[in-house]
Amino acid sequence: MAKDKIRRPRAETPKGFRDYFGAEVTARAAMLRRIAEVYHRYGFEALETSGVETVEALGKFLPDVDRPNEGVFAWQEDAEGDKPGDWLALRYDLTAPLARVYAQHRNDLPTPYRRYAMGPVWRNEKPGPGRFRQFYQCDADTVGAPSVAADAEICAMLADTLEAVGISRGDYIVRVNNRKVLNGVMEVAGVLDPSDPEKFGHERGIVLRAIDKLDRLGTEGVRALLGEGRKDESGDFTKGAGLGAEQAEVVMGFVEAKQQVVDRLSAKVGLPDVSFEEKWDALFASFAIDGPDANDPAVSVDDVRRWNDEILEHLEKLVEGSNTGESGVAELREMAGLLAAQGMGPDRVIVDPSVVRGLGYYTGPVFEAELTFEILDEKGRPRQFGSVAGGGRYDDLVKRFTGQAVPATGVSIGVDRLLAALAAKGRGEAEAQGPVVVTVMDRDRMADYQAMASELRAAGIRAEVYLGNPKNFGNQMKYADRRGSPVAVIEGADEKERGVVQVKDLILGAQIAKEATLEEWKDRPSQIEVPRDELVERVRAMIESQSS
Amino acid sequence: MAKDKIRRPRAETPKGFRDYFGAEVTARAAMLRRIAEVYHRYGFEALETSGVETVEALGKFLPDVDRPNEGVFAWQEDAEGDKPGDWLALRYDLTAPLARVYAQHRNDLPTPYRRYAMGPVWRNEKPGPGRFRQFYQCDADTVGAPSVAADAEICAMLADTLEAVGISRGDYIVRVNNRKVLNGVMEVAGVLDPSDPEKFGHERGIVLRAIDKLDRLGTEGVRALLGEGRKDESGDFTKGAGLGAEQAEVVMGFVEAKQQVVDRLSAKVGLPDVSFEEKWDALFASFAIDGPDANDPAVSVDDVRRWNDEILEHLEKLVEGSNTGESGVAELREMAGLLAAQGMGPDRVIVDPSVVRGLGYYTGPVFEAELTFEILDEKGRPRQFGSVAGGGRYDDLVKRFTGQAVPATGVSIGVDRLLAALAAKGRGEAEAQGPVVVTVMDRDRMADYQAMASELRAAGIRAEVYLGNPKNFGNQMKYADRRGSPVAVIEGADEKERGVVQVKDLILGAQIAKEATLEEWKDRPSQIEVPRDELVERVRAMIESQSS
Repeated sequence: MAKDKIRRPRAETPKGFRDYFGAEVTARAAMLRRIAEVYHRYGFEALETSGVETVEALGKFLPDVDRPNEGVFAWQEDAEGDKPGDWLALRYDLTAPLARVYAQHRNDLPTPYRRYAMGPVWRNEKPGPGRFRQFYQCDADTVGAPSVAADAEICAMLADTLEAVGISRGDYIVRVNNRKVLNGVMEVAGVLDPSDPEKFGHERGIVLRAIDKLDRLGTEGVRALLGEGRKDESGDFTKGAGLGAEQAEVVMGFVEAKQQVVDRLSAKVGLPDVSFEEKWDALFASFAIDGPDANDPAVSVDDVRRWNDEILEHLEKLVEGSNTGESGVAELREMAGLLAAQGMGPDRVIVDPSVVRGLGYYTGPVFEAELTFEILDEKGRPRQFGSVAGGGRYDDLVKRFTGQAVPATGVSIGVDRLLAALAAKGRGEAEAQGPVVVTVMDRDRMADYQAMASELRAAGIRAEVYLGNPKNFGNQMKYADRRGSPVAVIEGADEKERGVVQVKDLILGAQIAKEATLEEWKDRPSQIEVPRDELVERVRAMIESQSS
Repeated sequence: MAKDKIRRPRAETPKGFRDYFGAEVTARAAMLRRIAEVYHRYGFEALETSGVETVEALGKFLPDVDRPNEGVFAWQEDAEGDKPGDWLALRYDLTAPLARVYAQHRNDLPTPYRRYAMGPVWRNEKPGPGRFRQFYQCDADTVGAPSVAADAEICAMLADTLEAVGISRGDYIVRVNNRKVLNGVMEVAGVLDPSDPEKFGHERGIVLRAIDKLDRLGTEGVRALLGEGRKDESGDFTKGAGLGAEQAEVVMGFVEAKQQVVDRLSAKVGLPDVSFEEKWDALFASFAIDGPDANDPAVSVDDVRRWNDEILEHLEKLVEGSNTGESGVAELREMAGLLAAQGMGPDRVIVDPSVVRGLGYYTGPVFEAELTFEILDEKGRPRQFGSVAGGGRYDDLVKRFTGQAVPATGVSIGVDRLLAALAAKGRGEAEAQGPVVVTVMDRDRMADYQAMASELRAAGIRAEVYLGNPKNFGNQMKYADRRGSPVAVIEGADEKERGVVQVKDLILGAQIAKEATLEEWKDRPSQIEVPRDELVERVRAMIESQSS
């Protein structure tokens, strides 16, 4: 008894990690395969780096500046003689390794280098509900292409990818913005001095975060943060950027650009005076191929298709006088043109100035794919599904290795969120079918049962022999049930003698199988007796009848 | 200038890690997909655990007892208040996580639980040539099935898997042995006392390692290690197990079992008196579907098919008097029968007493898949490719978590070795075809070029627009060459005006493209002018003509 006191290891995943079973694994693999097909068709090449990099190569490029404590899993190698070991770490994204790869192999790689990568990344952060410390990323980047044609291509590819994995047109939108427009607005508002880019950095940080919180705080909340500051419901005060009223109005003009265009387009197409969200949804629905407004003359699709032009004109006025801002709007206009030429109208990709993207290193175009359909949240309230992918141009990432600036642009798809979205829409992979279970009535005739399973498999039918203790037949049926088996095969001594087998339809018989005895169970019409040599064809027919 | 002295990070993978590019990634993905299909058809379910486990859960199960210094990558979590952080580590195989998963989720999993897993594992060991610290494993295991039917099933699945990935019958063999036979031999030789299993542990270790080295040391070398010891070429002395002559003969009878059966079968089928290797190859060739001896009456396939029976009879005599040994031979006999019933004759799976497997934890059947064709080694000498997969029964792995012994058996495929084997046989994936490159003659008409690429892609043709600096046309052609492009598309102002495009066959024109000027280049017959609206069909026709 004393021996039992030996402390056993806990059978637990580390905090913040989880296991994925069966269809969870295969559905993700299928999605990654479909994404890779699109990426490949666009000329992107696969790249797989290892999970481990030197801390030196990874650098301090953790993507979310709002959470500076977000960290990496790191450890030091053993020393070799007097030389202290390198610090190694698990990669936290797929972009930092790309920068290292391009710097390391640039003489052997084509330029521009289009590559895609998919795999797990690790974050040493506090786990939370639905927030794991290992998750999948799926990225495509173009390194060495300075023109916005590269950005436009990636936005088009993103739209094609979403449709390839099962998101219908109208159920998603790729929203494009440009950091230079934002910087132009900052310049006009007086918080960016082109001759001293470091100046007002603190204020700009507050402005950026305020814009990013528009959805949550509303116009007045953002306006307060641009000025003196804001007291939230709990009474906590957040200090603002300290902009004067006139400066703040410039930024607000930008923040409200989308709203104003929505209002204007809504008026033009005769929508009633409803909330922003309702107008947005109505305009949006007109993009959907099979949307509710496809036959509704009140909203003219052609009007709505002027979206990009409307927004661009609006932005052009806002940044007047800022070179940076004007070049940003010009880039957006060029992208919209390139996208239209590839069949990517504003029903798939729109210019949207509310896209900010947290990542500090973006330097030009930024984009985000949003799913526009509603799902029910944990409290049963409808809400938009939201963002599933994003990216942009980051021209300085390779420079830290080589000293040479190399332009780059890319996108990262949140595969797990996308899988959740498809599941929420009921468009996930069909639950993988369980195997045919060949039951064991006589354990001395295992070879006969294996032969049956083998014949079924040779015919492409998923099949297995029951390998648990065969004594209790009910357990074999419970097992088949748990496995989601479509069909069970039974051959006792009597059947063997008569050259037949029993073939049981478990889909038909699912309800009763759990409790019935073997005798009751044999009487059910869902079970048929077939000649042994017709086993394969009769099982196949039964499975086919189930799916019809 | 001083700023340049700032030390830049090295753009290097950590020692012992590497990057995989393009076809290296896609060929592996394709192989894993094919393996998963076979595993799935056998009723195995996918499982994906994270790369990180607690050190406590992983335990000290590093598989190779001969290299106890082989380690894991581990680090300690930050403390939470007074509580010291857990030690975490990267998994070193896929079996230890399976044990943890089964212990953690056993109430929700079916029993038996058949699962497969594929993914990277990490070893903190000294890297060497071709030896990396991250590599792929691809495992299938059955947990909770005590009978050898489970082991036989896995051997059959392994044979089917090898054929599914492109290894022809006759080019591989699955070799099966049983640890109990080995233990029976030890018992008969007096170095295993069933009433005190710990006794003679040291001697048995030496005996096991000696048997495992038969190929390298030859019969006499093994015999020396069983006795007093052996001096190698460098003069170093390895102490032996200290067995007496009679004891040693029992072990040698086992070691030579395969050789004796090969001799007997060779005599029976009239092979001349050649070396063991030549006899083995000749016997073996008769298994190959398309082998050289398929029509050679000197070697009767039926004779060779008696392999398993011959070996089993031989082993039976050797272990006479040891219960363990006799039960091992009975298990091997049962497996051979089950395998034959599944169409797995000795042309695919054979009993082979020379299989030892290093892993300490195996308790019953052990098996190994070997590729039997010859490749050239780094010095150009022919050698057998060797082992690509192995596994066996390990009944005690879950017990450390739960206190309950749970029988388990499984196989691990060395995916990277298998890929290397297929490449050596010239049966690897065809190099993925590069994209059609739409060149840029006029950078203001990027939208036109993007539209072309987009049309090609919509027709399923891999295509991209050149996104580098378009000024130097030669660079565009060099780029297309480096990308392995089959076709380049050219539309200058002149072509645009006339509503045509130039379509250039780069496979035909590969040699000249590198140096010719645009004008020379346009004259070549490998280039055709086609109406713009026939672009897609003419490009498709050109690509099809290349592969025919």
